[in-house]
Order: sequence, then C-alpha cells, then structure tokens
Amino acid sequence: MSQADRSAKHTEIAGATADRIEVRGRDLVGDLVGRLSFTEMFLFHLLGRRATPLQVAVTDAVLVSIMEHGLVPSAIAARLTLLGAPESFQGAVAAGLLGVGDHFAGTASRCAELLDRIVAVPPSERKALALTLVQSFRRDRKALPGFGHPTHRSGDPRVPRLIEIARANGAQGHYIEALSLLESAIAEVLGRTLPTNVSAAIAMALREAEIPTEAMRGVVLTARCAGLAGHLLEEMRDPSAEEMWQAVERAVPYKPQT
Amino acid sequence: MSQADRSAKHTEIAGATADRIEVRGRDLVGDLVGRLSFTEMFLFHLLGRRATPLQVAVTDAVLVSIMEHGLVPSAIAARLTLLGAPESFQGAVAAGLLGVGDHFAGTASRCAELLDRIVAVPPSERKALALTLVQSFRRDRKALPGFGHPTHRSGDPRVPRLIEIARANGAQGHYIEALSLLESAIAEVLGRTLPTNVSAAIAMALREAEIPTEAMRGVVLTARCAGLAGHLLEEMRDPSAEEMWQAVERAVPYKPQT
Amino acid sequence: MSQADRSAKHTEIAGATADRIEVRGRDLVGDLVGRLSFTEMFLFHLLGRRATPLQVAVTDAVLVSIMEHGLVPSAIAARLTLLGAPESFQGAVAAGLLGVGDHFAGTASRCAELLDRIVAVPPSERKALALTLVQSFRRDRKALPGFGHPTHRSGDPRVPRLIEIARANGAQGHYIEALSLLESAIAEVLGRTLPTNVSAAIAMALREAEIPTEAMRGVVLTARCAGLAGHLLEEMRDPSAEEMWQAVERAVPYKPQT
Amino acid sequence: MSQADRSAKHTEIAGATADRIEVRGRDLVGDLVGRLSFTEMFLFHLLGRRATPLQVAVTDAVLVSIMEHGLVPSAIAARLTLLGAPESFQGAVAAGLLGVGDHFAGTASRCAELLDRIVAVPPSERKALALTLVQSFRRDRKALPGFGHPTHRSGDPRVPRLIEIARANGAQGHYIEALSLLESAIAEVLGRTLPTNVSAAIAMALREAEIPTEAMRGVVLTARCAGLAGHLLEEMRDPSAEEMWQAVERAVPYKPQT
Repeated sequence: MSQADRSAKHTEIAGATADRIEVRGRDLVGDLVGRLSFTEMFLFHLLGRRATPLQVAVTDAVLVSIMEHGLVPSAIAARLTLLGAPESFQGAVAAGLLGVGDHFAGTASRCAELLDRIVAVPPSERKALALTLVQSFRRDRKALPGFGHPTHRSGDPRVPRLIEIARANGAQGHYIEALSLLESAIAEVLGRTLPTNVSAAIAMALREAEIPTEAMRGVVLTARCAGLAGHLLEEMRDPSAEEMWQAVERAVPYKPQT
Repeated sequence: MSQADRSAKHTEIAGATADRIEVRGRDLVGDLVGRLSFTEMFLFHLLGRRATPLQVAVTDAVLVSIMEHGLVPSAIAARLTLLGAPESFQGAVAAGLLGVGDHFAGTASRCAELLDRIVAVPPSERKALALTLVQSFRRDRKALPGFGHPTHRSGDPRVPRLIEIARANGAQGHYIEALSLLESAIAEVLGRTLPTNVSAAIAMALREAEIPTEAMRGVVLTARCAGLAGHLLEEMRDPSAEEMWQAVERAVPYKPQT
Repeated sequence: MSQADRSAKHTEIAGATADRIEVRGRDLVGDLVGRLSFTEMFLFHLLGRRATPLQVAVTDAVLVSIMEHGLVPSAIAARLTLLGAPESFQGAVAAGLLGVGDHFAGTASRCAELLDRIVAVPPSERKALALTLVQSFRRDRKALPGFGHPTHRSGDPRVPRLIEIARANGAQGHYIEALSLLESAIAEVLGRTLPTNVSAAIAMALREAEIPTEAMRGVVLTARCAGLAGHLLEEMRDPSAEEMWQAVERAVPYKPQT
Repeated sequence: MSQADRSAKHTEIAGATADRIEVRGRDLVGDLVGRLSFTEMFLFHLLGRRATPLQVAVTDAVLVSIMEHGLVPSAIAARLTLLGAPESFQGAVAAGLLGVGDHFAGTASRCAELLDRIVAVPPSERKALALTLVQSFRRDRKALPGFGHPTHRSGDPRVPRLIEIARANGAQGHYIEALSLLESAIAEVLGRTLPTNVSAAIAMALREAEIPTEAMRGVVLTARCAGLAGHLLEEMRDPSAEEMWQAVERAVPYKPQT
C-alpha cells in the first residue's frame, strides 16, 4: 500500500459486493446473522471486537432499564409530531430522540467522566478525590451529574439492580466503589444524601464493563428509539395527541404582555 | 463542453471562490445583499429569477399569516425538546418542524392541486369540474384539503385577507374563482357550508402569484421556522416545558391493561 | 370506574411512583431488568405481552441483518451533521434516521401488506392472487416492494439466511411460501427474475413470527439507530466528513443556468 | 387576577378564538398581514415590539447573506435524506438544519459575546481588553470565534458589505469598532492577520441593531431553512443524491481493520 493510500480516509465498519456483506471484517450472513443477539451485534459494531459476557449482560440490563419511563417529554414530542405528520414515522421518532440530550442523557457520560477520574488514581487516594470533586461542583453551584431525581427521591430502584447485575456478571467493582465514594462525599459536603439516579448507574455499569464513555450516548439513544417506537404504535392505535395539545393549552394560556 | 460534461450532475444554486460568492449566477455581495429583502431573496432562490411585485406581496402575506398561531403541537414539541437538550437550539427547531407535515402543512399543496385542475379547464367547464371533484372526495369519504377547522368554524379570518391582498396586487383571479367554485360545490353536495381554512387560502394566493405547488412546503416550513425561533426564545427566558409535561401526564395517565 | 373515566385517554405503556417503575403492568426492576434481553424487552413493549422464542429469534436476526451496510446515505447524513453540530450526538443520529423512510425502510411494510393479502386467501387461490398482484403493479408501472437491488443483483445474501432462521425456529411457512409465489409470478410476468431484497425478507420473517406490519418501521429504525451510533463513534475518532463534503462538491459542481 | 394566576405559566406569543387570531397583543389579520414584510414580522415576534428601520435593514442583509453558500454539509445531508424519505419534505429540511450547530452557526453567538464584553467597558479600555481576550484564546489554544475561513482566505466579501449596510442605516458603530479592535489584536498577537468571517459580521451587524445575542441562532436557522427549501426543490427536479452517495463511497472506501 502506498503512503498516499495509507493516509487516505476510509471506514472500517462495513462494505458490500454483489454477493457478500462484510461488517468489521466478518461475513454478515455467515458469521453474524442468527448467531449474535441484537446486543452482541451492537457491541461488536461499537467496540470493533466480540463483546465479553459481562459487556452483554450489563448492556442488556442498561437498555432494558431505560427503554421506557412513560410519557416523558421525548415521548410527548414524538406523539405530537405524529399528529402533524402521520406520513413520517421516522420523523416522529427523530423528534423524540432530539430531546434525549444533555439534560437527561448527557448526565450518564458526564458522570462516567467523574468516575473515570476517581478510578484513575491509586485506591488510597480515591476517597479524597471524590470529596474534592463534590466540593468543586458545590463551589461552582453546578449540579453533580448522576445525582438527584424529581420522582425517585429516596433513590431510583434501578440503581441497586444495576449494581447487582454488574457484580453477578464478574465486574471488578472499581466503578461501583467510585460511585459509593461520591455518595459518601455528597453526604459529607451537603450534610444530607441525594438520590443516585439511573444515569449514574448507567455510567457505573457500562464502565465496569469497559464500554467507552463516548459510546454511552449511542446506547441511551438506541434504548429510547425502541421505547419511542412503542409509544408511536400506541398513538396510531389509540391516539391521545389531541388531548395532550388541549391539556397544554389549558396549562399555559395566552396572556398578552400589557 | 464535452457530452460527458453536459450530462454530468451539477447544481445551479451557488458556488464560492476565495473572493466571490455567486448565487444563481449573481454576485451575492454586489447584487443581492442590501438590495433584496428576505422574501425577494427567498423567491429568487426558489424560482431562479427575480420575483414580481405580486409574488413578493403574496409571499410576505402568506409568511406573516402562518408564522404564529400560539401553542400548536409543533411549538409544544420544540419546547419539550429544548427541555431535554438545552445545548441544541437547532434540535428543538428541527423537532418542531418535523410536525409540519401532511396533517397541517400538506393540505396547502393538495388543495393547490385541486385548484390547478379547475383552472386548467376552460372557464365554462370549471363549475361542473368543481362539483365532480367534491362528489369524488365525498364518495371516497376523504377530507377535502383546505376545508374545515376545529377553531375557526365560521371561517378563518386570514382567508378573506389573503384574497384581498392577492387582488390588490394584481392577481388575475382564476384561483380565487376556483376556490369559490369549490365552496359552492361543497354547499351543494353537503347541504351546508364548511369553513375554508388558511391552507386553501395559501394555495390560492401562491398559485395566483405563479409560485409552483412543489415550492409551497418550503414556504410553510420557513414561516414556521421563524415562529419556532420565537417560541424557543420565550422558553429560554420563561420556561414552561415542565408544566406542559405535568399537564400531559395528568391528562393521559398510566393505566395498565388488565 | 365511571363512564367518563373509561372513555378518558390513557397510556398502557409505563408509569412511575417514588419507589417503583412499572412497564406494561410489570415491575421494571423486579421482573424485567436482568431477566430480559434487549430484544425480548423491545418485543414485550411493542406487543404488550412476552414474546415467543420464534419472535425473539427472528427479530434478533432482522435487527442484526440491517444494522450495518456501510456508508449508505443515512450514515453520510449523520456524519455530515456531526461536522456542523459536534455538540449534539442525538442531532446527528436523528438526521440519519430521517432518511430511513419510504425509499428504503417503507418497502418492508408495503411488501408485508402484499404477503398478508396472499396469506389471507385459501392456499389453493394464493398462486393466482400472486400473479394478479404482480400484473397489477406492472400495469401501473409501479415498483414491486421488496424486489430489485442495485448492488445485490443476483439476490441479497441475507434473504435465504432469514428464511433458514425462520424455519429453524418453528415458523409455519405461509409467508415464506407467499414470498416464493411472488418470485414465481414476477418471473412469469416479466420473463426474467428480479432479486428479492432484504426488505422482502424482513417482511416475511417478521410476519412469520406474527409481529404486526405496523411495528416494522420501529424495528428497522432501532436497528439503524444502533448502526448510526457506531458510525458517529468512528467519525469522532477518525473524522472523514470534510473529505465527504469535498468529494460531493467535486462530483456535483456549481454551474449557473445560462 | 389572583396571586395564583399571576404566578402561573403563560405564553405571550399568540392565541386564537373562533374569529380572531392575536399575535403579541395585535390582531394578526387587521394589523399585521399585508402590512409587515416577513422580516418585520419575524422581528416583531422575536423582540415583542415593532422593529426599527435599522433592525429591519440589518436583519434582511444578514438573512440574504447566509441563505445560500451552495453544497455545504447541511445541504448535502438534506438531499441525501430526501433520497431515502421522499415522502417527507420537512424531514429533509430538519436533517439539514440539524447540522447548523456550534461549528458553523454557533460562532456568531460566541463572537457576539466577545463583542459585547468589549463594548461594555469604557471606550478608553476597549483596545486593551481586545488584546487580553485574544491572548487568552491563544493561551488556551482555542479558535477565536468569527475568524478564519477555509475558502475566503483573504477575507469573506460579505464582511465589508455588512459593515457598510449597518453604517448606512444609522448604526452607532460601537460593535464595528470592537470587531476592528479584535482584528488588530489578532495581528499583534499572531504576527499575521486572520480573515474575519461572516459569523463575526453577523454578530457585529445584529448587535449594532440591538438584536439580542440569544436570538441569533433563530435568525441563522431561518435563513438556512429558506436555503434548504431551494436545494430540495432542485433535488426533486434534477436529483443528484445518488451521485453524491457514490462520490462519498469512492472517497471513503471500506477497509477492514487488520
């Protein structure tokens, strides 16, 4: 291969010829279809190599945990979009996914960055670092990503379950410990506990399984894509978007500035 | 130019060199910026030639007519999206535009197709064709695009205004007449009148100005893009998406299937 | 429950209280997380009941089959979107999904409708109906959904694999037969074969598993959402969107109308 | 009005009754349609009050300046999306707008923040502050928003034109001066000039007209929405998305990791 070819841009993901489709160097039909579950294939695609049993177990648990939480803003946006554009199922799904941003989804990635910093230092220094991190967020009056929840005030029930699943599948426990150190540091700095939310548990679980932080958004979006598909199916069979619209108009009436 | 070059794909819209930007063959800076209003430039871009005064007047009137109608589903979807993804203003706008589809926006294009069919026949045959068209929609139990409105039941106030503006700017009146023929045919076939809605008036006005039917969606979307920008500005300054969410959850509660 | 309550709108999908999240009547944490794979949960959400082994096997095979096909238009659109808006991973995914519409994704649903019509008649009449359907498409000069492919001209390798997986997991075979009848009818009407594409195989496989046609778009979009997540991860690590842009500008140059 | 009502959420934008539509306290049909141009209406909506002649002139000039720049990534993404989803014009527009993010559009807002900081201090201190700001960006190795351009290397021709239009319409000149101070500071700190790009000129022009920084994204998106509508019209009449796709596949081939 010449120098020019080496430096040229390419994709390592997939390619097709008339009778063969290759994904990351493997024959799609011969090696993957019928042999891998969705989650195994998703991880093979994201990681570029076959996933470990821990990675599959944890990713399945995370995907199941966040697929559905009912009429959250992204589901409402998707249903209202279908009302206006019934011809475009994909447009309604896209509208829903557009709300899966920093406020809800981004916290998993940002919490993972905190956990990574704690795990990166020697075990004996982790407690002090957790305290420093919490103090720094408090000083800047910024919300600590992964903590606090409007509904699950005494703790999101998904958090202990994800810890349990990670442990049961052979996680080493460094990230579980880091999360626990952050919880203790919060109690010390604030003088009270904050509920650990599912974003923190996702961060912990996926990092225990060595799934890179930059892949987390893709995992969250895929779970929500599946969730939105179900909402739109319900909306097509038993529409309620008109009622949602009317409820919003009543709750936020027009009052001209005087 | 060789035969191969002639048949090759190209764009006629715009191109740039180091010191010049050309849009449809004109020097952007020297010929267009500071000389054309937004609407004149938009029409120059859509039509590929300078717009007539009738085209500009009618397009401005249409754009102003539909920019804002308050907390319609697309505005709610945009605001809910900003709640989840405050980092992406464009994502919230896009979510709102995704609901500007067949149910609301598509009716203008479909009504324009009906009007085009009526105007295409000799004047003496138009009344009979309008009747045939309305009967055909009734037979197929399909809604006639451009008629009926949940709020403006005795007629949308924008309809007579757009007719007035088209006439005042030199429209020939064929499409105004065709719309009137459809209204009479509806009264005859149904035994009662239906309110003509703003989509029908948009179709009539833009076709009077010889703006092609296939350009209508772009006009509607641009007006709504501007409208959504204002909603998101209000949402950033005085957020109400949390209240919208709660109102929807109350209006459409979770009841598991039994 | 009063009459008013009965008729009121509700959602059967999910709801949450302070210490419990319920999805379709089940305790999310106790009954689903850690017990169901992603695909089992997705089907539970779409169908409202636990999926059969045939449904899980076929859905996994379909999801794996269409997750990746390389730099298809939706992947290019997603990568170009990330170039302009690196702050919004979800925006880039949404842009990619917006291209998963009638041209590529809709064919599975439309092919399923044809197969449903054939399976709905007594076995002795199916061959004749398949012939009638193909003749009708030919008369209207419309493309038969599920047949023809620009790359896989002698047949998409995923088609026989999906048939094999359906059979191996206990499919009854009515849809496999219906697909075969369509293939024979095409050969008879056109005097030559057309390649059966993956959309037809998806339609066949999911209908063999009694997954409703209206749920197919959601399955396709979820597979592609996972695929796009991997493309964006590659784009973040080894960007090529600038090169894509330049390649397009060279391929489709600006030539003003003369 | 009770205390509860006062504190309740409301919208000041628009509302409708059976025979009247009100936008920001004015009768849409009687006061606005046929009286305001698109740009005047857009500014009335964004600002909540009638725009000044300077505001209209500058906003029109900005909208015209950035409506079209040819086959930029957002236009390519929109066209590729239409290829896959020809049924959804709004989906293709939305896909295009999703790329109008921090990399291209966000620079106007960020540059405006720099200009605001310079204008906020007494005139005698502005030169020193501009120098400090440029040095700070250089120290952090961050790109100064509004400067540098891959094509227009000796300066974007739109920049002097927007300055000229602002001046000709009565701008006070504080932001023009601030921009000039930044240019001088860059030359001093870097030892060479950087081309001022159109984002800086948009920031300068809109701030001269007292249009708030947080409204800039909406202005940019609306101009691009109009631009994308024209691209999609060309794509519908003379499709080139297939050629774009092939060009990308050639430029970025599949090479599996070895």
